[in-house]
Amino acid sequence: MQRVVGTIAAMLLALTLGAAAALAQDADPLPSWNDGPTKESIIDFVTQVTTEGSPDFVEPAERIATFDNDGTLWVEQPIYTQFAFAMDRVKATANENPDWKTKQPFKAVLDGDTKALVATGQKGMLEIVAATHSGMTTTEFSDTVEQWIETAKHPRFKVLYTDLIYQPMLELLAYLRANGFKTFIVSGGGVEFMRSFADKTYGVPPEQVIGSSGVTEYRMWDASPVLVKVPKVLFIDDGPGKPEGINHFIGRQPIFAFGNSDGDKEMLEWTANCLRVCFMGLVHHTDAVREYAYDRDSSVGKLDEALDEAEAKGWTVVNMKDDWKVIFPGPVAGQ
Amino acid sequence: MQRVVGTIAAMLLALTLGAAAALAQDADPLPSWNDGPTKESIIDFVTQVTTEGSPDFVEPAERIATFDNDGTLWVEQPIYTQFAFAMDRVKATANENPDWKTKQPFKAVLDGDTKALVATGQKGMLEIVAATHSGMTTTEFSDTVEQWIETAKHPRFKVLYTDLIYQPMLELLAYLRANGFKTFIVSGGGVEFMRSFADKTYGVPPEQVIGSSGVTEYRMWDASPVLVKVPKVLFIDDGPGKPEGINHFIGRQPIFAFGNSDGDKEMLEWTANCLRVCFMGLVHHTDAVREYAYDRDSSVGKLDEALDEAEAKGWTVVNMKDDWKVIFPGPVAGQ
Repeated sequence: MQRVVGTIAAMLLALTLGAAAALAQDADPLPSWNDGPTKESIIDFVTQVTTEGSPDFVEPAERIATFDNDGTLWVEQPIYTQFAFAMDRVKATANENPDWKTKQPFKAVLDGDTKALVATGQKGMLEIVAATHSGMTTTEFSDTVEQWIETAKHPRFKVLYTDLIYQPMLELLAYLRANGFKTFIVSGGGVEFMRSFADKTYGVPPEQVIGSSGVTEYRMWDASPVLVKVPKVLFIDDGPGKPEGINHFIGRQPIFAFGNSDGDKEMLEWTANCLRVCFMGLVHHTDAVREYAYDRDSSVGKLDEALDEAEAKGWTVVNMKDDWKVIFPGPVAGQ
Repeated sequence: MQRVVGTIAAMLLALTLGAAAALAQDADPLPSWNDGPTKESIIDFVTQVTTEGSPDFVEPAERIATFDNDGTLWVEQPIYTQFAFAMDRVKATANENPDWKTKQPFKAVLDGDTKALVATGQKGMLEIVAATHSGMTTTEFSDTVEQWIETAKHPRFKVLYTDLIYQPMLELLAYLRANGFKTFIVSGGGVEFMRSFADKTYGVPPEQVIGSSGVTEYRMWDASPVLVKVPKVLFIDDGPGKPEGINHFIGRQPIFAFGNSDGDKEMLEWTANCLRVCFMGLVHHTDAVREYAYDRDSSVGKLDEALDEAEAKGWTVVNMKDDWKVIFPGPVAGQ
């Protein structure tokens, strides 16, 4: 009797599991993507590398997917979110730095003088980032970021920056993970800045976030060890720094990479240099109504050479306006 | 009827799973460890952090365990394995570098003149490592390491270096992973050197290996992108560099760390600075017959300050001679 019941149980279990699998296959894994060649290129690739017995099958351990962050997973206009944070920190700590009232680039930030700020150029921006991203412990820094990210609002959309992540990309991250991929963020942004929200926001744990980083120094404070952030660059994870960073942190070549700007060109080229099949994607910002439209002439997220290369080599280019049904997870003002 | 069968099936399933769980609990997860306080401290800690409902329960995502490599997971005497590799590379590439015949520290290596080599000091060692670990692509380098590691023999034990890993530590790595831990290597050794064998040898994938690293440069060779290793240090993952490296790569604090020398002191202190419970362990090499006996006066793997700190703070110290039933996975000569 036990044997019979066991067999029936096994059959029932098989039926249930089979039904669940069929249901999972039927459900659209990318519901916010319009049907068409872009969506197809993603699903075809994932099917190809995950179908056992297929000549292009890739072992789960080798299914490494890397995503840029700014402009690929969330809004980067009108300025990088991390720079908005840095400017807010200049304002918040101005009292402790009285010399900033008369000293550029800080004066420009405190006066709200965009023209003067722009005139300080990249050097000015780096000075602001260095001043606001050092002189504290790593824990103090991430506490400050967490507090800021839970309250600061985007100037146009008037919602939290973490509400301005791209719903279609969230679905893509989840779809890849459901298919055994390990998803990494590989961004020019600061690694500690991103790690403060990447897990909660994208489901990407700290150890899968790669970014630019400053030097930290191990010290004893009140007999407790701390890591202090010092104003010295350790690594810039942008342009050629992206494949270098991928090698440094992951030590494997991705088979799937997504970016949106010329800063992602080398990461995509590095990924394209794969042994068998690989997927390279670019988000092209073409939707001024629901988000922004910019490419070759933009000072933020410039997409020029990488767009030419994508077209020449047949990489997937997302036309945001046509390919995405929705942009953000929820409704936002200003769209 | 279906309902009845379903219920019986569920009961049978529960019984089967229950039996399997009981069986798993009964089996000794650390069979190569002698019973006693050392083994107990490990099992107690793992039980404590993995028991749901316990005040010390730690979510799986936070179960980060870090292990030093040389002297903690495999033999480091009479010289670090990576240095044995570097010296073999000097010999193998001597023809391409005719000036080495008369130039120290290379001349000493080629002449087998240990005294002259030692006289070149740390500067000499670094020169040898720089010369043999740069000027090639990352792929060429790891191919060379793989080839070497599959053939080179340890001078005393006459077996492959990967046969000289510690069986008790392999069991510990597996035990932690079976309990939801993510196991990382955090070593002063070169990250690319270790990644060439860590997955196969320890089951630690490349993205979970942290080590010292040189700068790589992204270049196009014959229209293909490559990463070229240049003779410039990016990061030294030793001493205070270990907590810095853990923060840089993982971005979380470990709750479990194991080392064997003063170079691991800061990693252990950093781990000990945990919010609730954490485990700090040291391998003390006390077995000159089966392996080596060394500590405070050793030039390789010196264990002095960290041993005092471990004793003062009650960290777990493995007495290799008494705590380990076997040292290596298989029998080796020279024991």
